[in-house]
Amino acid sequence: MTRSVDLNADMGESFGAWSLGDDTALLDTVTSANIACGFHAGDPDVMAATMAQARDKGVGIGAHPGFRDLAGFGRYRMQVPPATLANEVRYQLGAALGMAASVGATVRHLKLHGALANMCTEDEALAKACYEAALSVVPDLTIMVIAATAQQCAAEALGCKWVGEIFADRAYNDDATLVDRRLPGAVIRDADQAAARVVEMVQAGAIIAASGKRIDAKIDTICLHGDTAEAVEIARAVRAGLEAAGVVVERFAV
Amino acid sequence: MTRSVDLNADMGESFGAWSLGDDTALLDTVTSANIACGFHAGDPDVMAATMAQARDKGVGIGAHPGFRDLAGFGRYRMQVPPATLANEVRYQLGAALGMAASVGATVRHLKLHGALANMCTEDEALAKACYEAALSVVPDLTIMVIAATAQQCAAEALGCKWVGEIFADRAYNDDATLVDRRLPGAVIRDADQAAARVVEMVQAGAIIAASGKRIDAKIDTICLHGDTAEAVEIARAVRAGLEAAGVVVERFAV
Amino acid sequence: MTRSVDLNADMGESFGAWSLGDDTALLDTVTSANIACGFHAGDPDVMAATMAQARDKGVGIGAHPGFRDLAGFGRYRMQVPPATLANEVRYQLGAALGMAASVGATVRHLKLHGALANMCTEDEALAKACYEAALSVVPDLTIMVIAATAQQCAAEALGCKWVGEIFADRAYNDDATLVDRRLPGAVIRDADQAAARVVEMVQAGAIIAASGKRIDAKIDTICLHGDTAEAVEIARAVRAGLEAAGVVVERFAV
Amino acid sequence: MTRSVDLNADMGESFGAWSLGDDTALLDTVTSANIACGFHAGDPDVMAATMAQARDKGVGIGAHPGFRDLAGFGRYRMQVPPATLANEVRYQLGAALGMAASVGATVRHLKLHGALANMCTEDEALAKACYEAALSVVPDLTIMVIAATAQQCAAEALGCKWVGEIFADRAYNDDATLVDRRLPGAVIRDADQAAARVVEMVQAGAIIAASGKRIDAKIDTICLHGDTAEAVEIARAVRAGLEAAGVVVERFAV
Repeated sequence: MTRSVDLNADMGESFGAWSLGDDTALLDTVTSANIACGFHAGDPDVMAATMAQARDKGVGIGAHPGFRDLAGFGRYRMQVPPATLANEVRYQLGAALGMAASVGATVRHLKLHGALANMCTEDEALAKACYEAALSVVPDLTIMVIAATAQQCAAEALGCKWVGEIFADRAYNDDATLVDRRLPGAVIRDADQAAARVVEMVQAGAIIAASGKRIDAKIDTICLHGDTAEAVEIARAVRAGLEAAGVVVERFAV
Repeated sequence: MTRSVDLNADMGESFGAWSLGDDTALLDTVTSANIACGFHAGDPDVMAATMAQARDKGVGIGAHPGFRDLAGFGRYRMQVPPATLANEVRYQLGAALGMAASVGATVRHLKLHGALANMCTEDEALAKACYEAALSVVPDLTIMVIAATAQQCAAEALGCKWVGEIFADRAYNDDATLVDRRLPGAVIRDADQAAARVVEMVQAGAIIAASGKRIDAKIDTICLHGDTAEAVEIARAVRAGLEAAGVVVERFAV
Repeated sequence: MTRSVDLNADMGESFGAWSLGDDTALLDTVTSANIACGFHAGDPDVMAATMAQARDKGVGIGAHPGFRDLAGFGRYRMQVPPATLANEVRYQLGAALGMAASVGATVRHLKLHGALANMCTEDEALAKACYEAALSVVPDLTIMVIAATAQQCAAEALGCKWVGEIFADRAYNDDATLVDRRLPGAVIRDADQAAARVVEMVQAGAIIAASGKRIDAKIDTICLHGDTAEAVEIARAVRAGLEAAGVVVERFAV
Repeated sequence: MTRSVDLNADMGESFGAWSLGDDTALLDTVTSANIACGFHAGDPDVMAATMAQARDKGVGIGAHPGFRDLAGFGRYRMQVPPATLANEVRYQLGAALGMAASVGATVRHLKLHGALANMCTEDEALAKACYEAALSVVPDLTIMVIAATAQQCAAEALGCKWVGEIFADRAYNDDATLVDRRLPGAVIRDADQAAARVVEMVQAGAIIAASGKRIDAKIDTICLHGDTAEAVEIARAVRAGLEAAGVVVERFAV
């Protein structure tokens, strides 16, 4: 059987006068785009323009809600009550649906952003509150979860459609959590190295920890970062590496 | 033929810790609610709660977008480029659709708020940009326009579904514009007086200016204000007056 | 020796179109006002108006910075890096100084708001970062700390001017922390009861826990809440009770 | 007599995760920096860092308040009531004073930003409201005005300290207004051309319109833009041109 995999990246993270990331270049490489929804980044103009580009290039569109925290880019943990958070997810997803409809595109998936995503890798109840909220707006939405975390548990418990994600540029601990950014080797900045390990993990159907340990995982999509200097280069190397290894790079099926 | 008319009011204008208006009382009287969408007022919790109440009481739900100006409650005129404004309308309408879907309700109409609404009574191109944007998200949406203004011209030019609105508590000039708030008699604060003139205008099918002049108008809905001290009292008086005169008070048909 | 004590309340918590609290009534009762600085509540108009009123009534003015979180009223804990938080405190204090100068008033003290204050009762390093930031703007500022918490430790470690605060309407545990709001008796809503225990604590120079245990504390000021239904009534009762017991109610000395 | 002139540029226009402009490079060339105050751009971290750099390089620091409009970068005209605008200027100036004090620097001047500045070149009353507000916070502040506009009239009427500014990269009409950006030649992108005309105007003590007409003006400072591709190159060319012509480039005296 031929393996296939999706490549995703966060996009639409510009705001007003401020640009961030090279979305145009990334959209030539990835197959799914997680579009910021205006709470931590993105504005209606940016959303419309990014979705129109994604549509033109056949890239799958996802809503990428985060905390209501523009100054912190959604990167600070906030103790927002889950019921309020649920409504904030509904609001952002709805806004994304509106923008997508206006450019004749479709929102296929939802992926949480930043600190909210991190908190949901540890707290299944919180992840469930967010995902359930999204499904209350679009019942057959696909949830993109970080594989082998509480995010995945929440999606499984809800019985919804979901795809599992691993990171191209982060080293893993033996329990499938990410190596602390402050430790050496935690972040992979070399494009070839990132590509090689992604190929290895996709072929193995497993997360391969820094120790070499294999953790079986449903790997449907690879997360590529969009806001670093090496972003586009790593994205291209990962795609080229996968294709060279005979892996089909395509949007996940919904 | 029995006349019928809709009663509408702005709602969901609380924000975070701050409450505004007595939505619960108004929802017992009006037949359509214009729900703020988070840019000038309202937040996801407020939107969800207000829409759920409206749904329970059979009140029609509308999106009520305004300028991105929380500090000014959308009451300051802003020279936002029409294309950006169009995207802001799409975004807010989409958010309203998301919140409504999550509580099992439907967004039937759109009405512009505050300074944006005022500018669109004078500028048909601006009104058209906003309405066209809304229709790009929901093609069969009903647009609520201030009767006999550039808003109405824009809706007519677009050939979309629209309903015409007059004000219960504002005096009119002979050209169907509102009497300047700073002039005596511009704002009607007496509930019985407001009720009597609404009945007269609905029965006449015309705006009746302060001078007595009649301006034929398509009067589908009466705007009741929600944020004044007299709001609930005037709303009840207008409804009672209409019913006593044999006018059916019901949601406009879509 | 005659005892004296200051009464403080949070104020200036309205925002734009939204009003909160009865500042005018409270300003007749308290001797110090903690003015919100625009991040969690308050806007420049509100700040100017509240400070002008406080000045006219001889009420001491304090800056009351909180998290940059208008939607959550600064009540959600946020993991903002201390260096960023320090700059946010400097900014808010500076803004308060500017508003005060423009109305011919002086900012005498600083008190942290909401979740930020709560976090600083537990985390001396965080409290120190905030206080040090404030003192870098106004070296001789008085810091208002919640007595017998990490806030007090931080102020002591910095060797700055500080005053200790207890709550009029909250029950205490034996370790001087507040009884969890969800437990019965945690919040005192009866004005006479609140007054009686404040008098007792001020005369004892100690926090008196729900168990009756006494914890010696430097009690310079009593915190009265401004945003509850009973706020003004409790404030008046506490002031009357203190005066009846021979305690002088006056602004703390700086 | 040796002529001297100041060079100013807008700075500190980054926000949170978003960078804008090459402040570090510009600070080596200009003698005054107009620091955004958080309403249209800038945040407390950015303000502190930019002011610290300016202080280290001996560059004069100014507060640069704008409309409360982050999404529009303060570039949209807004009909904010003058009294509210005055308080917003006080707030932003106060915040700038606080940040400056904390890094041991001084705020020497104030310059309005974007659409607010444009409106004040046409509306003396509005300019006066803003400047008077600033002077109510810092009575001996220097106001930086766009020469030969209503801004200058307002400063003269107030009798305050002020310096006059011309633009390095914009063509002038015969009435000293700027040529409409949409017309050919309105914006000068060639560094040498910009430098040559600045030298000519400074030496003439006059604005030289596109037609060649001379309008006498008090030229104390040259505005260099910070947010264009050519910004740093033009700034360096203007400085070099002035120095080659024997003009001393230094901070304006206060």
